[in-house]
Amino acid sequence: MSGKAVREADRQREMTELALKQLGSLVYEQIRAREFPWIMIQSRSTDNIIYDQELKQYILGDRLIRRHSRNIAHIRPFAQLIWTAWFSRELLRHRKTSTLREVYYSARGQRDIEFKDQDESDNIITDLETALSRPREDFNIYPEERSAIFGDLTIEYTVPGYEGKRMNLTEHPDGVMIGPALTSAEFIETSADKVLVIEKGAMFTRLVEERAHEKFNAILIHTAGQAPRSTRSIIQRLNQLGKMPVYIFTDGDPWGVHIAMVIISGSANAAHLRGLATPDAKWIGVWATDIVKYRLPTEKLTDMDIKRLKELKKDPRYGGELWQREIDLFIKLGVKAELEAFSRYGLTYIVDKYLPDKLEGA
Amino acid sequence: MSGKAVREADRQREMTELALKQLGSLVYEQIRAREFPWIMIQSRSTDNIIYDQELKQYILGDRLIRRHSRNIAHIRPFAQLIWTAWFSRELLRHRKTSTLREVYYSARGQRDIEFKDQDESDNIITDLETALSRPREDFNIYPEERSAIFGDLTIEYTVPGYEGKRMNLTEHPDGVMIGPALTSAEFIETSADKVLVIEKGAMFTRLVEERAHEKFNAILIHTAGQAPRSTRSIIQRLNQLGKMPVYIFTDGDPWGVHIAMVIISGSANAAHLRGLATPDAKWIGVWATDIVKYRLPTEKLTDMDIKRLKELKKDPRYGGELWQREIDLFIKLGVKAELEAFSRYGLTYIVDKYLPDKLEGA
Repeated sequence: MSGKAVREADRQREMTELALKQLGSLVYEQIRAREFPWIMIQSRSTDNIIYDQELKQYILGDRLIRRHSRNIAHIRPFAQLIWTAWFSRELLRHRKTSTLREVYYSARGQRDIEFKDQDESDNIITDLETALSRPREDFNIYPEERSAIFGDLTIEYTVPGYEGKRMNLTEHPDGVMIGPALTSAEFIETSADKVLVIEKGAMFTRLVEERAHEKFNAILIHTAGQAPRSTRSIIQRLNQLGKMPVYIFTDGDPWGVHIAMVIISGSANAAHLRGLATPDAKWIGVWATDIVKYRLPTEKLTDMDIKRLKELKKDPRYGGELWQREIDLFIKLGVKAELEAFSRYGLTYIVDKYLPDKLEGA
Repeated sequence: MSGKAVREADRQREMTELALKQLGSLVYEQIRAREFPWIMIQSRSTDNIIYDQELKQYILGDRLIRRHSRNIAHIRPFAQLIWTAWFSRELLRHRKTSTLREVYYSARGQRDIEFKDQDESDNIITDLETALSRPREDFNIYPEERSAIFGDLTIEYTVPGYEGKRMNLTEHPDGVMIGPALTSAEFIETSADKVLVIEKGAMFTRLVEERAHEKFNAILIHTAGQAPRSTRSIIQRLNQLGKMPVYIFTDGDPWGVHIAMVIISGSANAAHLRGLATPDAKWIGVWATDIVKYRLPTEKLTDMDIKRLKELKKDPRYGGELWQREIDLFIKLGVKAELEAFSRYGLTYIVDKYLPDKLEGA
């Protein structure tokens, strides 16, 4: 952890503005040289998305595509990309954030730019990420999802009006929302020595209430389902900068398993980005093995669940022994169990017994 | 606003414990008198749910049902109700909160109690609410949904470990999560003179960023779709105790309209409860009229949307002139518009122009 605080955030913003400006200069130069402007981007088509065993995440291959304004089919996405870059720079200049949806509607206010739907505009934002190798959060564009964090971590805000102001994340016992302000904050100080990531709000509230952050000396993070990117980047920062091991705790079903995997290895959708995956993070439960060992109340796997488990089994990210064993056992048992299932042994069992067992095992 | 703080929360808890104890005593007395125990509850069947024009909300009619343990068909729900009452008392005694789902799973740990699914257990919790005329939050049972609040309001926590601790709700610029701790907090002090309720996270973040809380001297509340009960009760408290007018701001479509209406008039599901509706609250947009006036980007109404609008038109809560006019116009225009649609005029238009217009009109 370091206390460079605002200066690091300023540097990041300046670097991103610079990258956007360079993109603009490139296009200007081409026009000035009487060329049709064009840019090169890594291809994001499926055949160029590769699982990297070393990095343990999906990456883009070497294939590049050239987006050329001389090509009639490229003019539209080319113009959209340039507009999106301009809009991002405006956001940074005015120190405003925006959501994906607002970007789409902002374009609708322009006479000369057009997106037929939000998918098209989201896709262009991903192009811009790819072109500049920066996540959209660097352009101050955020998705709407919200997750939460709680525990002894002092942060220092960098958003306008709050610069230099510090907050300790135990201050609000319902958990502190992860939005633009938290995502862009510096991490100043913590006494925690690990991170516990939880898929569900109910269990997060349970852990706060049972003071799991003190008992396990942990920072608690609630992903609210699939962890949004900003949450994944916070997990990664705590793991990297703070040298804290990360333990992930999800429902015992294929969807929970995959929530853990995306935190650990990233998603194919974000193959063009780095800094989101935490390969050292450990999925500690609910395992199929736990369903048997702790005799948890279960529900039957649906056809969808079984189909999904079979897909995961073939996914290169799931090559490891633990994953294969647990996927096989889920299929064999034909059942799944939710985090809340531990309540059958009383509300505190999960903190008093299950988590200590699992953390010791991990 | 008052500073009675912890004492008021203690009193509430004691009263709820007392009510639960009385329920238990009643059953004991009946058994001791060698009767099969029974209790009376207001019927919640549709023909006993009435719209009260005076209160401007749904209420239960006078019909009572007797749940009698001599009746073989009643034994199961009777036993479930008594167990749920016992469990609620345990929660209060140990000052723990629980979610609806955890209650369901907690029952599964009992040898002699059984719920076939969570619907059955949720339904029994509603019976208990009806029997004791108290919302489940009084029994420390919360749903999982989360919404958020932001603005100059100082609260004082009453949850264990935080008693007497105060927080000002401008402290975290991503918004402060509304969970059990915030719901049970006392409201100490505010300089705000109104409440702005917003359906969507994107717009909530926009308003925080544009300092709408300062410009409009308002407390901002994000409902995250349909407002959960705890959020509705916070809105009601700010309106009643704090004498603050409440303005609701939703998407311009039947679902947004109904989010506003449920805050104003409550839902049929909560006809057995009071203290959730805010009849004075005003829906200020996005109206169908606004779509025309502000020339907003729109999407076509789907068949579902049109069906829903026709249902709302017949709903007794929608008798007022404004509602009828706007529903008719939505149907006539055949389109809807989202909150973010204002971005076509720039990100700040909504704060600089639209909201001032609407607040002045209201």
